Amino acid sequence: MGSVSDLKVMENAAIFLDEMNIAFEINALSAHRSPRQVVEYAEGLEARAVKVVIAGAGGAAHLPGIIAAVTPLPVIGVPIKSSNSIDGWDSILSILQMPSGIPVATVALDGARNAAILAVQILALSDEETMRRFRAFKTGLARKVTEANEELRKFRQK
Amino acid sequence: MGSVSDLKVMENAAIFLDEMNIAFEINALSAHRSPRQVVEYAEGLEARAVKVVIAGAGGAAHLPGIIAAVTPLPVIGVPIKSSNSIDGWDSILSILQMPSGIPVATVALDGARNAAILAVQILALSDEETMRRFRAFKTGLARKVTEANEELRKFRQK
Amino acid sequence: MGSVSDLKVMENAAIFLDEMNIAFEINALSAHRSPRQVVEYAEGLEARAVKVVIAGAGGAAHLPGIIAAVTPLPVIGVPIKSSNSIDGWDSILSILQMPSGIPVATVALDGARNAAILAVQILALSDEETMRRFRAFKTGLARKVTEANEELRKFRQK
Amino acid sequence: MGSVSDLKVMENAAIFLDEMNIAFEINALSAHRSPRQVVEYAEGLEARAVKVVIAGAGGAAHLPGIIAAVTPLPVIGVPIKSSNSIDGWDSILSILQMPSGIPVATVALDGARNAAILAVQILALSDEETMRRFRAFKTGLARKVTEANEELRKFRQK
Amino acid sequence: MGSVSDLKVMENAAIFLDEMNIAFEINALSAHRSPRQVVEYAEGLEARAVKVVIAGAGGAAHLPGIIAAVTPLPVIGVPIKSSNSIDGWDSILSILQMPSGIPVATVALDGARNAAILAVQILALSDEETMRRFRAFKTGLARKVTEANEELRKFRQK
Amino acid sequence: MGSVSDLKVMENAAIFLDEMNIAFEINALSAHRSPRQVVEYAEGLEARAVKVVIAGAGGAAHLPGIIAAVTPLPVIGVPIKSSNSIDGWDSILSILQMPSGIPVATVALDGARNAAILAVQILALSDEETMRRFRAFKTGLARKVTEANEELRKFRQK
Amino acid sequence: MGSVSDLKVMENAAIFLDEMNIAFEINALSAHRSPRQVVEYAEGLEARAVKVVIAGAGGAAHLPGIIAAVTPLPVIGVPIKSSNSIDGWDSILSILQMPSGIPVATVALDGARNAAILAVQILALSDEETMRRFRAFKTGLARKVTEANEELRKFRQK
Amino acid sequence: MGSVSDLKVMENAAIFLDEMNIAFEINALSAHRSPRQVVEYAEGLEARAVKVVIAGAGGAAHLPGIIAAVTPLPVIGVPIKSSNSIDGWDSILSILQMPSGIPVATVALDGARNAAILAVQILALSDEETMRRFRAFKTGLARKVTEANEELRKFRQK
Repeated sequence: MGSVSDLKVMENAAIFLDEMNIAFEINALSAHRSPRQVVEYAEGLEARAVKVVIAGAGGAAHLPGIIAAVTPLPVIGVPIKSSNSIDGWDSILSILQMPSGIPVATVALDGARNAAILAVQILALSDEETMRRFRAFKTGLARKVTEANEELRKFRQK
Repeated sequence: MGSVSDLKVMENAAIFLDEMNIAFEINALSAHRSPRQVVEYAEGLEARAVKVVIAGAGGAAHLPGIIAAVTPLPVIGVPIKSSNSIDGWDSILSILQMPSGIPVATVALDGARNAAILAVQILALSDEETMRRFRAFKTGLARKVTEANEELRKFRQK
Repeated sequence: MGSVSDLKVMENAAIFLDEMNIAFEINALSAHRSPRQVVEYAEGLEARAVKVVIAGAGGAAHLPGIIAAVTPLPVIGVPIKSSNSIDGWDSILSILQMPSGIPVATVALDGARNAAILAVQILALSDEETMRRFRAFKTGLARKVTEANEELRKFRQK
Repeated sequence: MGSVSDLKVMENAAIFLDEMNIAFEINALSAHRSPRQVVEYAEGLEARAVKVVIAGAGGAAHLPGIIAAVTPLPVIGVPIKSSNSIDGWDSILSILQMPSGIPVATVALDGARNAAILAVQILALSDEETMRRFRAFKTGLARKVTEANEELRKFRQK
Repeated sequence: MGSVSDLKVMENAAIFLDEMNIAFEINALSAHRSPRQVVEYAEGLEARAVKVVIAGAGGAAHLPGIIAAVTPLPVIGVPIKSSNSIDGWDSILSILQMPSGIPVATVALDGARNAAILAVQILALSDEETMRRFRAFKTGLARKVTEANEELRKFRQK
Repeated sequence: MGSVSDLKVMENAAIFLDEMNIAFEINALSAHRSPRQVVEYAEGLEARAVKVVIAGAGGAAHLPGIIAAVTPLPVIGVPIKSSNSIDGWDSILSILQMPSGIPVATVALDGARNAAILAVQILALSDEETMRRFRAFKTGLARKVTEANEELRKFRQK
Repeated sequence: MGSVSDLKVMENAAIFLDEMNIAFEINALSAHRSPRQVVEYAEGLEARAVKVVIAGAGGAAHLPGIIAAVTPLPVIGVPIKSSNSIDGWDSILSILQMPSGIPVATVALDGARNAAILAVQILALSDEETMRRFRAFKTGLARKVTEANEELRKFRQK
Repeated sequence: MGSVSDLKVMENAAIFLDEMNIAFEINALSAHRSPRQVVEYAEGLEARAVKVVIAGAGGAAHLPGIIAAVTPLPVIGVPIKSSNSIDGWDSILSILQMPSGIPVATVALDGARNAAILAVQILALSDEETMRRFRAFKTGLARKVTEANEELRKFRQK
């Protein structure tokens, strides 16, 4: 992420990765404050056996795109509605609209949890245990609908 | 894809996958014209050893989201600026803004080629040969910049 | 509706239907968390003599569209400005911009009450008693204007 | 519709109604050029046994809303991307965003055919023969997906 | 205005008209709740020697346009960011984008005071005393800039 | 107007003023290319017995606002979708959103004819002959609806 | 700046200029309340040895453009999300979209600090001491990334 | 610029710089295709005595921001409405909305000529001859208004 103020959004990715038992590292990196460091960080990812990158940024968000420019690894971008963003439109468009050749897998505004879910889906393709855990998570989503229906029933009985 | 009219955009994905020697299938599937068939198609993906899904759609684009709702596989969404789309905004927002729990990896408007590149990046994580091919492709991107500079030099000499 | 958090908006539909003495059921259904269940729910509507469906959803709102894809009954969609929505634009566009063949009757953002009014207007076409009640309601709207004028008169006399 | 220039869009509604064997009338009515006439037209609808109104308009589109204000019948609004419209946004918002009490069932931009489909769905609720015809139409939609797949197969064999 | 809730915005027009000593009336009128009454109100304006109309409305704002459709008097429209408006865009577009033949003089979002100023400018064309008062008001605007500079000087001396 | 390229839009104002027999002058004036000249032009308007100003401009359109800043006369602004405009949004917002104290009566995008109509409505308040002409014009608008209905009747008989 | 209410945003420019030891003046100037004064102020800038102008304004923001129209000096524009602005879009577009010939160097919404930084970058081109100070500032930006990483490390150890 | 396809827009900057007799170089550089090369290019600018950078890019435009991140020189950004851009909004927002600390002086969409004008204004601050040339250019702008008025006079005499 670009700054510590993004942590409030991005920690939702960390929480899900912990739930799924996926090892990860968190770094503050700024395409604007230390661009060379970002390039070097991205060049070193494979050597450290990183598989997937999640990059969150707000406003004119360049971090996901620059990392994707350097590394052949899949990069997931999280547009953040930061204080200097215009309702999130700038964050979305500067992450989503990457030119041909260098995609960033963009998720919903402030969708850090979904970024982590997508990362887990990618990792699960080559790891049976992760796939097993993810299936259990997905089954749990359906259960929430059942619980919601129970709550609605109570509402109708009022 | 939802209809044959999307082929003009989506064939760019097919072309890149062929370049990278990745086996794939193309299907017309419509979340709106045959929803049950989409659910069943998505349920059967893993049994047929599919690894990644690329779904393109325009307007109120529900196809990527519904497939992502069913399968645990990663789903890449391509918003298409189809004839019934409002400059592509509807396509983008109805693919990107998925709720928590069910991400779609969204790429740029009409970015089918980038969707295929992202799919290759995901597959390359567990396939050395694909990674080797992808690295070669990525090196080629930088070469285009060199060629562009040569063209610009000619422009200045006019 | 997709989740219990939408109840705050959607209960306005329930209140109006109660006022008009129309029998109804409320369900939580998620096109994303339990898509097959939505398809089956929609397939069973006619057998249970349901006449009109009101579906509310926010963000990349697929629920109204998927129900409309399955059932021949009219489906009324309520775009909801939920917490994960970009000022409601995503909700509106992913409900309104349905492809040719599968309309969703879309009402204003958070317009659950208007959705119920529209449902009553549809039901009143084949039910004299409902039409009578609805006419009384419509006459009441004009009365509000008279009351507003009285309030304004007081304002001017201050 | 407001002017003859809207006929190019609105005739798609006429074509579908003819296909479904639904009797209808077409009128030019302008909330802006002859407002009193619109009010009187809307007041007379029920006496002439009209069941559903489809109103299309572009720009600051007031026609659907004014008819809905007068009649208790359901009104379906078609936003039209006319020459004086800003990419259709004005047409959509001035039809969709009706105040509480007076809904307009809004369909997609230029979605006159979908407006007719919605009208047929409403009429089919109290007319078995129309419902039978509509079911046949809906089955036909799924067939288009099968045909699209055949076309795609040919594309792959090239 | 359409409803008493708009008074908070519209009273700024009343305040300015009082300052300029212009006689006026305030009415609640709803193009949607009592459309015929609006038409009749607008038809009667000239007989009551009204010169200019200021109409404020939010959401799918039809009130200014319908009055302008009926009366040959100039109509000034105030788009209101009411609770059911999407950040004011719907209000602006459904007042501003009137078709050829029936203009509404639109002012800024929630700009009721500016609507009154514009009305005064129009009335001043044929009333010397009003023009004199308005000139004094306009001179006062420049004085505010001088006062602002004095405040800024204090800020710098801190 | 700001440049001769705007004439294609603005001549529609000239045509209507000629139809209504209103004397007028056309000037090219640029708030950006010769700002002092604009201020002096606006200061001299009353001395030359000008009553109403129509100013059209595109992009970051400052011309209407600057004239309104100088003169106490009513200023009507025409946002123009010029070649350097972003679909007209910049033109609309920089004319419409004037600060408190200095309104510009804004009409629809490219609505030069409506600007002229509004000017005539203002002038008609103090000129019986102009009012008579304008009433005739307004009656003519309703006649267009009758003609449109005749055309539609022919369409149905095909 | 146009009014004292903009000071909350614009003082961030003052603070940075003070940090960089750059002499400056602050003025309230309104293109709308005292346009002639703005023209005269801008005409006098060079005689007073001013090098760069920073102008902030909200809504239909004409101040930066009018100053740029008069002076040959570079003008930096700060769009302000003032209370009468529509989420800042009007401020941005009416500053950014200047016509060919008269650029305004636009910075981010409410980006007064960035405007001051840009001014310092321009001044540093011909002043070694300022360049030295600015380099130190830029090095400090990278340091913030290091500090952020330390904070993130603590977060992970929780 | 990012690619040769941007030359059609960017050559307008080259043309103006030639008119003003300013030495310059044109390069193709891509923040996405060769990011490290961009960083190195930007690091070397001062050593080669470059004073101002003009960077044009479309879509998720990262080139101006990354150069501004590296160099202390002023960077002027030109948002380009390239074929993969959504009406230019993505280009504008990803150049304009830079975070605090790293401004890009943004000009209008496709405003390459204005970028060159701004560059000349900056250079003229420390170069009398350039300032003299620029003043002559600015005087010429006013002359265009005079010529436009002559053309309009002919239009009126038709």
